[in-house]
Amino acid sequence: MKAKPLKDLSRLCIHTITTRPLDIESAAEKYASLGIRGITVWRDAFGTHGPRQAGKIIRRSGLEAVSLCRGGFFPSVDPGTRKLAIADNLKALEEASELEAPMLVLVCGADPRQSPETSREQIRAGIEAILPSAGNLGVKLAIEPLHPLYADTRSAINTMKQANDMAGYFDSPWLGVAVDVYHVWWDEDLQREIARCGDNNNLFAFHICDWKVPTGDILFDRGLMGEGCIDIPQIRGWIEKAGFEGFNEVEIFSEIYWKTDQDDFLNRITRAYLEHT
Amino acid sequence: MKAKPLKDLSRLCIHTITTRPLDIESAAEKYASLGIRGITVWRDAFGTHGPRQAGKIIRRSGLEAVSLCRGGFFPSVDPGTRKLAIADNLKALEEASELEAPMLVLVCGADPRQSPETSREQIRAGIEAILPSAGNLGVKLAIEPLHPLYADTRSAINTMKQANDMAGYFDSPWLGVAVDVYHVWWDEDLQREIARCGDNNNLFAFHICDWKVPTGDILFDRGLMGEGCIDIPQIRGWIEKAGFEGFNEVEIFSEIYWKTDQDDFLNRITRAYLEHT
Repeated sequence: MKAKPLKDLSRLCIHTITTRPLDIESAAEKYASLGIRGITVWRDAFGTHGPRQAGKIIRRSGLEAVSLCRGGFFPSVDPGTRKLAIADNLKALEEASELEAPMLVLVCGADPRQSPETSREQIRAGIEAILPSAGNLGVKLAIEPLHPLYADTRSAINTMKQANDMAGYFDSPWLGVAVDVYHVWWDEDLQREIARCGDNNNLFAFHICDWKVPTGDILFDRGLMGEGCIDIPQIRGWIEKAGFEGFNEVEIFSEIYWKTDQDDFLNRITRAYLEHT
Repeated sequence: MKAKPLKDLSRLCIHTITTRPLDIESAAEKYASLGIRGITVWRDAFGTHGPRQAGKIIRRSGLEAVSLCRGGFFPSVDPGTRKLAIADNLKALEEASELEAPMLVLVCGADPRQSPETSREQIRAGIEAILPSAGNLGVKLAIEPLHPLYADTRSAINTMKQANDMAGYFDSPWLGVAVDVYHVWWDEDLQREIARCGDNNNLFAFHICDWKVPTGDILFDRGLMGEGCIDIPQIRGWIEKAGFEGFNEVEIFSEIYWKTDQDDFLNRITRAYLEHT
């Protein structure tokens, strides 16, 4: 069953990377002026502000910090690099806490010089190393499975099943799953694995955009909702059936849209959100 | 367990698309002169020759026609287009028979205007429509699962499990699976699903190349064996454990290599085959 049409922007969140040309102050102001309520902050968006100051800017605009993007990238053939990754994730957790964002999204990483299985073992070790701090700081960790297209260098967790298996291994209230339609739309197990998140009460985030046909660039050609082949209302229906009541987060990497006027783009986002999500 | 190193070219097959600039006569002659034994013919390689004549050229060179590429592309929201696809697949089966190739590879297709599930239903209907002719002509059909990267327009069969499920549905000696390392290397179920092919005696083909890091182009930037992150000896080990004794088929789409001297490229292929497969 598809989701009921969205009637307002009260559950709309935008990722700062979506409007990359805007600094955090402009982004917060523009989002808020359109009636958008949530913002997910990418770490590069702190700019000259620290996370604490960024959090103040966000709250002053009347926005809610939904999550911080991103932690992860645990695997490496080099043990020293893996240690650095854990240190950086602990720093990201501190930043999320200072931002007063309740969640850190994990793009878990992969090293093409080793097998995906080995990368997943190192992801497990990385999560194990940071999970206590997540609990202490009150910041949730959301494992985002990435499209198999990115299995070489970005994540060895490429399906919802793998994300659920990893979350299930730890079985912690501080560890869950972020569903991004771009990464999982093709998967025949999607509906079942979303329901599994619901059963485990660990569906932490829902990211939206669209898969363009054709896609011109492997990284930076994501589409606005409605521009591609993903049945977003269907997936949102499954998400909501699983009990999710959080924000619908627009996360679009697009060299094309980054070059356009960002006010126009934000208007297009709000329209696409109401019509095609 | 990894496969034992390859000692000679007796099981090497090259796809005509790999050396796209060469016509079928040059390709056959050059492959044979290097000691290569197998050739898989893409339909565009017939050129001004018909399939019967192409078959004669191949056999005159001392090569074996391993398969014809490619049939499939069954799904469409338009029923007329689906009928045309079935007619074209029947034609491809006739061509394979005239070429005296024992197999037709299926890139099953997908239509981004409908769900992957619907596309898979139409793939099932398409295979059902052509399977009797395949048996009558003595031409096997090999379902090639494609990387989820191609789930929008090229195939709604994106994992070995889906290919095995589809083959299992028909349970015919004329229908099996083609494993291409490029499409399946990332899949945590790969070893198990290859073993399942072995149990079902339907592992019909094995295609090799490599996944470059980074990959520059979504379609035409495949790497030579050894240039990327795929553990080909590992996968070949699983394939051989499943009882496969056919050719190792080099299928590389590369705008980069197509622009180079094809004699040099063929020498690089044979070296990469012996060193990295």
